[in-house]
Amino acid sequence: MDEISVKTSFQTQFIDITSKVNEVLHKTGIMDGVCTVFTPHTTAGITINENADPDVPRDIIKETAKIVPLDAGYAHVEGNSAAHIKSSLFGCSETVIIMNGSLMLGTWQSVFFCEFDGPRNRKVWVKIIGG
Amino acid sequence: MDEISVKTSFQTQFIDITSKVNEVLHKTGIMDGVCTVFTPHTTAGITINENADPDVPRDIIKETAKIVPLDAGYAHVEGNSAAHIKSSLFGCSETVIIMNGSLMLGTWQSVFFCEFDGPRNRKVWVKIIGG
Amino acid sequence: MDEISVKTSFQTQFIDITSKVNEVLHKTGIMDGVCTVFTPHTTAGITINENADPDVPRDIIKETAKIVPLDAGYAHVEGNSAAHIKSSLFGCSETVIIMNGSLMLGTWQSVFFCEFDGPRNRKVWVKIIGG
Repeated sequence: MDEISVKTSFQTQFIDITSKVNEVLHKTGIMDGVCTVFTPHTTAGITINENADPDVPRDIIKETAKIVPLDAGYAHVEGNSAAHIKSSLFGCSETVIIMNGSLMLGTWQSVFFCEFDGPRNRKVWVKIIGG
Repeated sequence: MDEISVKTSFQTQFIDITSKVNEVLHKTGIMDGVCTVFTPHTTAGITINENADPDVPRDIIKETAKIVPLDAGYAHVEGNSAAHIKSSLFGCSETVIIMNGSLMLGTWQSVFFCEFDGPRNRKVWVKIIGG
Repeated sequence: MDEISVKTSFQTQFIDITSKVNEVLHKTGIMDGVCTVFTPHTTAGITINENADPDVPRDIIKETAKIVPLDAGYAHVEGNSAAHIKSSLFGCSETVIIMNGSLMLGTWQSVFFCEFDGPRNRKVWVKIIGG
């Protein structure tokens, strides 16, 4: 298992970690299998989406802030319940297939770390299983 | 890794691909392990839900169209931001356990390809890991 | 593959199953790999979030009941469409990395079974892949 460090600058922010996940993959030398990308935080997530147009992650962030409001009479005293809810809806991991030593992503797909309660220093764990 | 082709006919549509995933599994001859079903598109998804009553996928499609409106002042110029958002909320992959050469799904579970920006010709990738 | 039994007491309820998943892991003796936690129901889910403060799962349950209303003119005659929709949004599985014989969860992360249409007797399947 390898660890990637992510430093976020805003309360809500998507950071493209595809190249870092690829670095981990290439170090292992594994040619075929699956790659699990997992973040060990309860107010963050991992998602796969488009990064060619930065308006795509921006629209996702803006609209999900409407779906899960920052303030909605939550009970949790830390005041970050919206971030916990988004973490469960986006999920804290993604699994990507590996073929011929490459992450099999679509033309427009990037792997994003999703910060929902930043800015913070965060971690992402990557595990490659050959097969 | 194997590829499944999916042709969608509507803007939003769930297509049951369980039998196609099973075909891939049976070709490999793998008896125990896990199966990753992944779609390489950023305006589509993979989900597992009930297909016995077609009203279930219909209700999911109808209600999620209310949660993520088609038009909400999005910035992304292609006009399909709602599809990108749904892709991240449903997720672009599912993992299913394999036992005795079968996909371990519950009685009412089917694997669906979720079209959120059709109609289009789409791809789904299936990878089986034995273990 | 191992099966965990879960008995729920309410219509909507999150039950921490981390210790039960750990029991399955320790029985296998597998030291490194990934663990798939999968529920074979279409009105339930699996999520990873905080359990230190019980207000976190409570806020998630309460707010997602606003996002996906129990009654919204659904077509499905069983009357539990909201539960099916939540199942697809939360997802019916999670994958956790295993290192040195331990589930690699963050300090605040627990694995929850999510009941969306209880009370019922439910099942969770756990599969460990070494590698």
